[in-house]
Amino acid sequence: MDDPVLLTGASGRVGQAILGGIGEDYDWRLLDREPPTGESDHEFVVADVTDEDAIRAAVDGCGAVIHLAGDPRPEAPWDSVLRNNIDGTQTILDAAVDAGVDRFVFASSNHAVGHYETERKPDLYRSDDDFQLDGTELPRPGNLYGVSKAAGETLGRYYHDEHDLSFAAVRIGNLTEGHPPIDYERGQAMWLSYRDCAHLFDRCLSADYGYEIVYGISDNDRKYYSLERAKEALGYDPADNSAEWDGDEQVE
Amino acid sequence: MDDPVLLTGASGRVGQAILGGIGEDYDWRLLDREPPTGESDHEFVVADVTDEDAIRAAVDGCGAVIHLAGDPRPEAPWDSVLRNNIDGTQTILDAAVDAGVDRFVFASSNHAVGHYETERKPDLYRSDDDFQLDGTELPRPGNLYGVSKAAGETLGRYYHDEHDLSFAAVRIGNLTEGHPPIDYERGQAMWLSYRDCAHLFDRCLSADYGYEIVYGISDNDRKYYSLERAKEALGYDPADNSAEWDGDEQVE
Repeated sequence: MDDPVLLTGASGRVGQAILGGIGEDYDWRLLDREPPTGESDHEFVVADVTDEDAIRAAVDGCGAVIHLAGDPRPEAPWDSVLRNNIDGTQTILDAAVDAGVDRFVFASSNHAVGHYETERKPDLYRSDDDFQLDGTELPRPGNLYGVSKAAGETLGRYYHDEHDLSFAAVRIGNLTEGHPPIDYERGQAMWLSYRDCAHLFDRCLSADYGYEIVYGISDNDRKYYSLERAKEALGYDPADNSAEWDGDEQVE
Repeated sequence: MDDPVLLTGASGRVGQAILGGIGEDYDWRLLDREPPTGESDHEFVVADVTDEDAIRAAVDGCGAVIHLAGDPRPEAPWDSVLRNNIDGTQTILDAAVDAGVDRFVFASSNHAVGHYETERKPDLYRSDDDFQLDGTELPRPGNLYGVSKAAGETLGRYYHDEHDLSFAAVRIGNLTEGHPPIDYERGQAMWLSYRDCAHLFDRCLSADYGYEIVYGISDNDRKYYSLERAKEALGYDPADNSAEWDGDEQVE
């Protein structure tokens, strides 16, 4: 891909995991609401995703968008997720289509399906439990943040169907650097290592697809999210598994 | 049910079909953004669904809500459906839960799944075509209005899971008074007669359920929406079928 990739919410943890892994492999245009704290290796735009004019300027000339920006707090109030996550995602989708962007990768969340866990926890966090979600199920958000992420997936469906935009929604699990969460079964079940995160978004930028909802986790023994679509549609090939961390060394 | 039923968007066509059929069967509190054009047989509140204080006052003391209010135009712009349909539905859901309302019936729309038709029309509008949607499929909105209706369904899922509110989403088809649409195959496939509409919302107020997404159409030969969930979960027993209209007489 020769045209730049717009990465919104670039300064957040997911953005940092992506840039740490594949920062050299694409021509990036980074966007964040806050200026970078240090020197940036890439073009950097300071803008809010709800500022339509700024977003239209930022997306101009890009071939793809990875849209991470939004209020990331599971406990975020409705007014914030309505504005930042739902309206913000529509703003950038609309701008992307108008600018001729070919593909759009959206950071969705495990919280879009959090209430599937309610009557099954903690059993479903364990390796011997067979329950799995595969991305074809209707959303059952665990909070209003999760509602906003499900709405983003539906917006993507519309822009794909109506405007032929390739769209991948990644329902990101529990992203932690170095090693899986400790003493937290749910986090171990949906762990996403930094290198698997970067690899998965790399596949989202490279594979050929139409509309996909995939789970963004490592290949954890404890998982209750299927990785089938990520593997089949995107060629995701995770390297990590929270069960393999022995407590001594950091995962790369 | 002794407590009043709050009916929002009461002056619209769906509201009129409901009141025409079951207006005598419940104690209604009607709400609309515009005052009634004539004398109202029921308590009438003039308020906008985005006015949180007015909505909290209107829902106080009600046992159930039928929420029809919103921008009804399939071609409505994003800003309007974001405010009136998405934010408006969250406002009233939140107020309903706080007021101790037991059940919430939401006017969703065929437009929430409009893009399933894109590669199948006009064949799927015909009696000999087997394609059916049953309400378990992910939304594929045909427009931003449809996106807003899908978001309302997801909000309902959250309020059901989190607050134990009974929630039924009715994906309303093509509601016309008197007889089915003429020379419009799609409209005949998803026709909803006035009396079937009133009966279906009556069942939504009376049946015992948790969370349901059902299609709101008559029992049309041409249908591509399954009525199974409406029949099984709600006891819906439609009287009409667009194929039976012979062009001479009006359906009751």
